[in-house]
Amino acid sequence: MLVVMKSDFADEQLVAVLAHIRGLGFTPHVLPGDHSVAVGITGNRRALNPGEFLALPGVKEAIPVTRPFKLASRDFQRRDSEVRVGDVVFGPGRFVVIAGPCAVESAEQTLRIAHKVKAAGAHMLRGGAFKPRSSPYSFQGLGLDGLRILREAARAVGLPTVTEALDLRSLEMVYEHADMIQIGARNMQNFTLLQEVGRLDKPVMLKRGMSATIDEWLMAAEYILEQGNSRIVLCERGVRSFDPYTRNILDLSAVPVIKGLSHLPVMVDPSHGTGQRDKVIPMALASLAAGANAVMVDVHDRPGEALCDGPQALLPEEFQSLRTRLGRLAEVMAVTLQPSAARASP
Amino acid sequence: MLVVMKSDFADEQLVAVLAHIRGLGFTPHVLPGDHSVAVGITGNRRALNPGEFLALPGVKEAIPVTRPFKLASRDFQRRDSEVRVGDVVFGPGRFVVIAGPCAVESAEQTLRIAHKVKAAGAHMLRGGAFKPRSSPYSFQGLGLDGLRILREAARAVGLPTVTEALDLRSLEMVYEHADMIQIGARNMQNFTLLQEVGRLDKPVMLKRGMSATIDEWLMAAEYILEQGNSRIVLCERGVRSFDPYTRNILDLSAVPVIKGLSHLPVMVDPSHGTGQRDKVIPMALASLAAGANAVMVDVHDRPGEALCDGPQALLPEEFQSLRTRLGRLAEVMAVTLQPSAARASP
Amino acid sequence: MLVVMKSDFADEQLVAVLAHIRGLGFTPHVLPGDHSVAVGITGNRRALNPGEFLALPGVKEAIPVTRPFKLASRDFQRRDSEVRVGDVVFGPGRFVVIAGPCAVESAEQTLRIAHKVKAAGAHMLRGGAFKPRSSPYSFQGLGLDGLRILREAARAVGLPTVTEALDLRSLEMVYEHADMIQIGARNMQNFTLLQEVGRLDKPVMLKRGMSATIDEWLMAAEYILEQGNSRIVLCERGVRSFDPYTRNILDLSAVPVIKGLSHLPVMVDPSHGTGQRDKVIPMALASLAAGANAVMVDVHDRPGEALCDGPQALLPEEFQSLRTRLGRLAEVMAVTLQPSAARASP
Amino acid sequence: MLVVMKSDFADEQLVAVLAHIRGLGFTPHVLPGDHSVAVGITGNRRALNPGEFLALPGVKEAIPVTRPFKLASRDFQRRDSEVRVGDVVFGPGRFVVIAGPCAVESAEQTLRIAHKVKAAGAHMLRGGAFKPRSSPYSFQGLGLDGLRILREAARAVGLPTVTEALDLRSLEMVYEHADMIQIGARNMQNFTLLQEVGRLDKPVMLKRGMSATIDEWLMAAEYILEQGNSRIVLCERGVRSFDPYTRNILDLSAVPVIKGLSHLPVMVDPSHGTGQRDKVIPMALASLAAGANAVMVDVHDRPGEALCDGPQALLPEEFQSLRTRLGRLAEVMAVTLQPSAARASP
Repeated sequence: MLVVMKSDFADEQLVAVLAHIRGLGFTPHVLPGDHSVAVGITGNRRALNPGEFLALPGVKEAIPVTRPFKLASRDFQRRDSEVRVGDVVFGPGRFVVIAGPCAVESAEQTLRIAHKVKAAGAHMLRGGAFKPRSSPYSFQGLGLDGLRILREAARAVGLPTVTEALDLRSLEMVYEHADMIQIGARNMQNFTLLQEVGRLDKPVMLKRGMSATIDEWLMAAEYILEQGNSRIVLCERGVRSFDPYTRNILDLSAVPVIKGLSHLPVMVDPSHGTGQRDKVIPMALASLAAGANAVMVDVHDRPGEALCDGPQALLPEEFQSLRTRLGRLAEVMAVTLQPSAARASP
Repeated sequence: MLVVMKSDFADEQLVAVLAHIRGLGFTPHVLPGDHSVAVGITGNRRALNPGEFLALPGVKEAIPVTRPFKLASRDFQRRDSEVRVGDVVFGPGRFVVIAGPCAVESAEQTLRIAHKVKAAGAHMLRGGAFKPRSSPYSFQGLGLDGLRILREAARAVGLPTVTEALDLRSLEMVYEHADMIQIGARNMQNFTLLQEVGRLDKPVMLKRGMSATIDEWLMAAEYILEQGNSRIVLCERGVRSFDPYTRNILDLSAVPVIKGLSHLPVMVDPSHGTGQRDKVIPMALASLAAGANAVMVDVHDRPGEALCDGPQALLPEEFQSLRTRLGRLAEVMAVTLQPSAARASP
Repeated sequence: MLVVMKSDFADEQLVAVLAHIRGLGFTPHVLPGDHSVAVGITGNRRALNPGEFLALPGVKEAIPVTRPFKLASRDFQRRDSEVRVGDVVFGPGRFVVIAGPCAVESAEQTLRIAHKVKAAGAHMLRGGAFKPRSSPYSFQGLGLDGLRILREAARAVGLPTVTEALDLRSLEMVYEHADMIQIGARNMQNFTLLQEVGRLDKPVMLKRGMSATIDEWLMAAEYILEQGNSRIVLCERGVRSFDPYTRNILDLSAVPVIKGLSHLPVMVDPSHGTGQRDKVIPMALASLAAGANAVMVDVHDRPGEALCDGPQALLPEEFQSLRTRLGRLAEVMAVTLQPSAARASP
Repeated sequence: MLVVMKSDFADEQLVAVLAHIRGLGFTPHVLPGDHSVAVGITGNRRALNPGEFLALPGVKEAIPVTRPFKLASRDFQRRDSEVRVGDVVFGPGRFVVIAGPCAVESAEQTLRIAHKVKAAGAHMLRGGAFKPRSSPYSFQGLGLDGLRILREAARAVGLPTVTEALDLRSLEMVYEHADMIQIGARNMQNFTLLQEVGRLDKPVMLKRGMSATIDEWLMAAEYILEQGNSRIVLCERGVRSFDPYTRNILDLSAVPVIKGLSHLPVMVDPSHGTGQRDKVIPMALASLAAGANAVMVDVHDRPGEALCDGPQALLPEEFQSLRTRLGRLAEVMAVTLQPSAARASP
């Protein structure tokens, strides 16, 4: 923490600041300047609150110097983490492709799409059973039935699954039926849910909140890590912005930023990040080029009938083409596209 | 819904769009233009999804024309709603002042501040017992003990209370101990929580999400309304923006925007909206001038020791001064500052 | 400047940083921490560039501690500045009301509206002769003819004028014909124009850029101040945001923020800030309550025929009503609504 | 244009709207709905202003249906444009690499870096002689001397140049000395400058404004096109956002969005887009993968001494490595990395 005094501070105000710092068990270091004085604080045994300093008379600013996250930080663990979901590994030198319908709509639809994405080379199957929808009048998902359908389809084609949990009740069911638990953007700061997920022994995909800073996102991961679950994959899915052409701005530079700050794998969801089919393929390729560890795309064979986000779903043949190009790109980027779980098992 | 065809659409694509619309039981109206053709759709018995049209070949855009919210809309109810919390009324011609500590820290601190804000003319007491904090290492609130402390202090001074519920478990406790349930910004799209609150017979303060559009905010209210609870007060608390000088941009124009769209009362929290004590008073006055129905401010008598958001808390004497100025401003704005609950009872 | 070392810095890297600082003629102060080391720099005879430190091996962050603006800063001048335009004064204890058409469309239209806003109690007349329009196909203003029309109308009713200059050529003409030069949002970082305005002896209204930070805005003022012109009034006009209901988010908290940082007067343009007539009155009142020194509103008696921004123009009778309410509000806020120039002259 | 009536509109208000439309020489089409009525307008011989409709009584919304840009639109020209700068071609199936120092600092520095980027395979040389700086106290560039230095260095190594013009005066000089004129983000809506550039016979690199929508960006191009200059390359350079880790959010999805809307080539500047050296390489690779036609990066061999933006400059060896990887990536993406001008000439 660096405390900056106002330009017209009184000496006794500075003395009071120094005494306050010493009273907290820390060491103040006075830094005289041309216009004012700053006080550096060392010996930080606990997080300091800028508030306790801003509230003192004569203080102009209190600037935190150390990062607020710990277990998620590269300072805590230098090497990249690996997160396993069945035979699939998220981590350095590898690239995972997740595909499937936005929502599980029926057993027939899910199985049909599962076969297609598996045939095209997906490593994991996605599909929402509990859907967070802005409107109470929109399709909310099939719930437990949806989870069972997803599980059956995944078994039939031999892929592990990821699906979203919305609350403690659905979390229990998702835990039982899926291989990886997705925490969506709207729940990134649902701390109760994060802590509960942190107590489970299942991998977690943590999506970035609608306008979460990278610090807030890593702090959300910290909530999970702090409860003991370190199998976390971060997922960029676009942040709110002002341009109406895309649903969000997909913040791809978050990928190298996270790589610098944290040891956790980071992936991208270009389907929700752009909201439009013809933007998904370029942004999926760009995600791999930017250094992401995985990509997740919506695929639907009849997008005009999709109950959720049809306009952003790739057609199976588009996904096939994307998958092929990702394969070639992976070679150039010197990462291995995972063998799918099924191919790994004889 | 207005469906716009691409400039190079084929006739059979237009025919397919018309057939699709008729197949859904709606009526298409072809609007020829210079560069393309648009198709208006009428007979909307249910919400149409732009996706079903965007997915058809030849279609360039699908523009929704009607608002996505219903029960929250002024089209549904023309006159302003009134929401009662004890003797306090949020609604047209009135202005409510809520004050108290950001967090309940101890029985002594809460009672001390409660006396001060009551003496200065607050109508309701605020105080957090369950605190959503970005960091798992920050003070998380006193929980059930905090609720009890808040209730005791409120009874002692004769003010109704508002406090935040974070999840289903804390909601049960807040329902039992508080007079108004606050749903915070981070939970604005926690739909499970919204639906549960919608089934309760207690008034709700629904804060705007960190970067929620006004449509999304009203849709969140719709989740509550649709379950039967119509005692909702919307609370603007700033949206995310790019300038580091304030914690958020307090979007005061949301007040007249909401007044135009919805019958629900709307209020402002300038403490969280700006994050800085010396911005709170001007923005509280501006809230009243902009037509808000209430204002909620953090007050702390020892902000340097506050466990949460000290820098934004007004000192009791600052609150007193604000309250006096609000009183004078209210006369000019032709609204009545509520008699406090205590003064109303003999 | 505070330079923070990476957690795994090497001793020789720290030594190199210290040598670099001394080589620049400054004094380094080492601040040991738990995880790393920070180095405070004092003796700042010139602005330091974080870049020179970030580029050194082992350096993690370089945090500027002092503000980048000088002449605009309250550290430079503690008391509030006063800016005179004819008999009108922008400054502490006063509130100025500027009104008029968005664009000068004809002599008849301008004179008609000038009479109406004067009668209603405006202190200055606005009206664009050079209009910056997003589209090359939109009405671009009457140019020099417009300036002459505005001047004639203003003389006829006895009000000083403000109008926008777009470039060096129009600046020359605006300088000759208007009483105050407006620099628009799109030109806030047109540094050539700022410097030229800085060499003139006319007051300047400097609008905030579309998404300018407050630091950038004050730095733009610094460009003008540094050339010798200190008669600057800052004008908040909304910043870009994500909600489609308003054209911009009017950032009213910029008013108290500027008051804290700078001695320059600050005003608000709620017409361009909201883009909608029925939001203008509440936000104009809120501007005064938030502590602004002036407000500028578009007025048009036939908004349906306006060549520019008709939907945000107040009708003359709406302006009259706003002006009356501002008068009453000013009393409560203890500021004087300026006598209009005409009333001041016998 | 689609005009939507309020739910409580009066019949005579609708009649007035229809008369108004016919009076303008257009044809109204009434579309009855459940809650209200909408009116489609066809026969658009000129741009309609939503304002003229919003100002009519009973009207709730006026929704423009056609795009505001024409010459920049793919509706106007279906095939991708090619823009030549010397032997370098920006256009379909090709990828151009531009590199050089942020600012021209001296003849020696520029020549040194020019040799290095040429040797590494750059196709064009960048370098600022006129620098738009937020602070009047920052280095503003060497001006005309800088242009001459850049030209000499470029000739020595055989590369065409691009450099920024800030105003009409510097534009004249840039026109004379450089091969491509850069219009920077801060000048994207400096319409006088755009129109002047539009009258020149030199290619233009048009950077996106700090928070410009894609429509505004294409409209800025329209200003240039409309004056007769169609040799425009659009350059994405990041938009303002809320996260402090990067200088801007690089909006890579703008690349496919522009590809859908316009025939103009589009490129990316990841150096200014991220502001940090270690984010530049991943984002440059991602730009190519996303379908951009070119990339421009800052290179400096002594970034610690750079007078401008040192922290974002690649070291020559980093640029070499990037260039090699771009070459391999280009093969996978089926685009040709241009032969550099020099290699093309024997």
